[in-house]
Amino acid sequence: MTNDTETDVAWLPEEDMAVTRSRMPIVYVDAVPVRVDSNGNVTEVGMLLRVAPDGNISRTFISGRVLYGERVRDALLRHCEKDLGPLALPRLPVSPAPFTVVEYFPDPDISGFYDPRQHAVSLAYVVPVDGECQPTQKALDLSWFSPQEAVSDAVRQQMTSGHDRLIRLALAHVGQLP
Amino acid sequence: MTNDTETDVAWLPEEDMAVTRSRMPIVYVDAVPVRVDSNGNVTEVGMLLRVAPDGNISRTFISGRVLYGERVRDALLRHCEKDLGPLALPRLPVSPAPFTVVEYFPDPDISGFYDPRQHAVSLAYVVPVDGECQPTQKALDLSWFSPQEAVSDAVRQQMTSGHDRLIRLALAHVGQLP
Amino acid sequence: MTNDTETDVAWLPEEDMAVTRSRMPIVYVDAVPVRVDSNGNVTEVGMLLRVAPDGNISRTFISGRVLYGERVRDALLRHCEKDLGPLALPRLPVSPAPFTVVEYFPDPDISGFYDPRQHAVSLAYVVPVDGECQPTQKALDLSWFSPQEAVSDAVRQQMTSGHDRLIRLALAHVGQLP
Amino acid sequence: MTNDTETDVAWLPEEDMAVTRSRMPIVYVDAVPVRVDSNGNVTEVGMLLRVAPDGNISRTFISGRVLYGERVRDALLRHCEKDLGPLALPRLPVSPAPFTVVEYFPDPDISGFYDPRQHAVSLAYVVPVDGECQPTQKALDLSWFSPQEAVSDAVRQQMTSGHDRLIRLALAHVGQLP
Repeated sequence: MTNDTETDVAWLPEEDMAVTRSRMPIVYVDAVPVRVDSNGNVTEVGMLLRVAPDGNISRTFISGRVLYGERVRDALLRHCEKDLGPLALPRLPVSPAPFTVVEYFPDPDISGFYDPRQHAVSLAYVVPVDGECQPTQKALDLSWFSPQEAVSDAVRQQMTSGHDRLIRLALAHVGQLP
Repeated sequence: MTNDTETDVAWLPEEDMAVTRSRMPIVYVDAVPVRVDSNGNVTEVGMLLRVAPDGNISRTFISGRVLYGERVRDALLRHCEKDLGPLALPRLPVSPAPFTVVEYFPDPDISGFYDPRQHAVSLAYVVPVDGECQPTQKALDLSWFSPQEAVSDAVRQQMTSGHDRLIRLALAHVGQLP
Repeated sequence: MTNDTETDVAWLPEEDMAVTRSRMPIVYVDAVPVRVDSNGNVTEVGMLLRVAPDGNISRTFISGRVLYGERVRDALLRHCEKDLGPLALPRLPVSPAPFTVVEYFPDPDISGFYDPRQHAVSLAYVVPVDGECQPTQKALDLSWFSPQEAVSDAVRQQMTSGHDRLIRLALAHVGQLP
Repeated sequence: MTNDTETDVAWLPEEDMAVTRSRMPIVYVDAVPVRVDSNGNVTEVGMLLRVAPDGNISRTFISGRVLYGERVRDALLRHCEKDLGPLALPRLPVSPAPFTVVEYFPDPDISGFYDPRQHAVSLAYVVPVDGECQPTQKALDLSWFSPQEAVSDAVRQQMTSGHDRLIRLALAHVGQLP
């Protein structure tokens, strides 16, 4: 779901992180990148292709931890830039309220959202991006899908962690659920 | 609160509009234009100076009717462009849900929002604008205020129709109410 | 979608209403009645069986006009009581902001929400009901469905006006879209 | 802001909790208890009187941690019952999305929300309560205030941690900010 190892090292040893992950819910942000037309209608949804926490290659969204001392907005921007590159020009929402809260558990049956490493409570946002996106770090690819394609069986089969449900929640929020 | 006379004429005679206004709630949109920083924090709020429906010169927001057959988004964009000029580059929100619903009544005591001409039910949105704004039509001026200034007594005394309350609702929504 | 004829008669002659409906968007409220458990999770969705505006018998939600001078909340309560009976004990939401805005047009292709009689802009709310519901007026039946059943093909085929989409938007809003 | 020591002990030693609190943001929920009329209008806001994290006696809201493996809803209900007693009958919101996100920091200047013990990211909800409330545990008192009283100088001076701002955000969300 994320790849935040590199940012953690400096401030929390991996072993401590592992201990914490087994005892505390972790604060996360999820971002669904979208293209919008001049009226604000969502026309396309961006999905990354990468190695999921469970080892499979899958379509996924931007997702990552909020660090100690970091504002939620700063974490959201940091993860967007990390995954979409420095020229993406993400438009962070003006309201701090997420459109939904995603609860990831090591047990996939609790909420339907799954992360084998941890219990994460994630604030989910839809983020329009205007600029050039280039997949960075561990992302293998970034592709754009129409709302219809994004909820199609073909794409949903490429998604894990419950992200095939998150995309539908996001599209419902923007009034574009097919 | 608005100046939609010119767009009405072609399709609904003024006398019919007057009759309708006395019998039906009218669908409106309100837009609070804001400047945001790269993190999405609202840094400034834009307010128009113009002649309010009650005849006073006052600070106010973008406000206007949704026409027959018109999408809410299209109305929102139309009124933003009408009041801010063609180069304002308003960023319409991705969700169709307003942050609040403002109910204007000819009786100022019903809801605290007042319009002597009509009962209007208005969908209110916060709209970041990136471009150059130039007051158009009947607006005499457009000024930008920090959140602190926008809720100050000096500015509030220049506002009518309950817009001094609307600005606080908008700032609360974006987490910037001082 | 609604049956508000009887409440209109007293204050707006049918012929005037017909003229207005052909010239102005009409302010509506839609309510999706739900049953919730003690944690606030939606467990069931209520749907009325009745004659839709297009003449077909269909599954639908609570829907109706906001009258001149009426608060949105009062309209929402009135329509809930009209359709669910006086013992339903609807729990109106504390926020005036709807979870989505439904735009009904006489042309079904504009937004996917259809009303042959009019252009209606409807504020949509999810309304938990605790009490005994009894279908009233023109509703033939009220049935409760689990979220899974509510989005099943069998139920969707009984829905018109785009309400098969509205139910999915409502379930997404409450985090229960299957 | 909270008093969750007793629930922590069983599963995370105090010293480990202290270490974690110095390294990770902690997931919290805040609940603003309210009384509503039959139309859903907020008529009163409940505030607890208790010893705040900074040692002062202050007016505050329900606030507490989400535990490892616990759903956000379950945490919200648990903290409501802990602070309001078992007969309060809290009405948890149907949507998992909080109305705002409160970021508490040990440095009061970062966000205006302050907790000397930790960086907490708190999901804030307005929770109507119908039943009998009795302050429990470390709360010294529970009092109900009208929206006007709740934002008065007299009451605001009794609030710490930024909760005088949280009450205004909550009242704005429900359309009752005076």
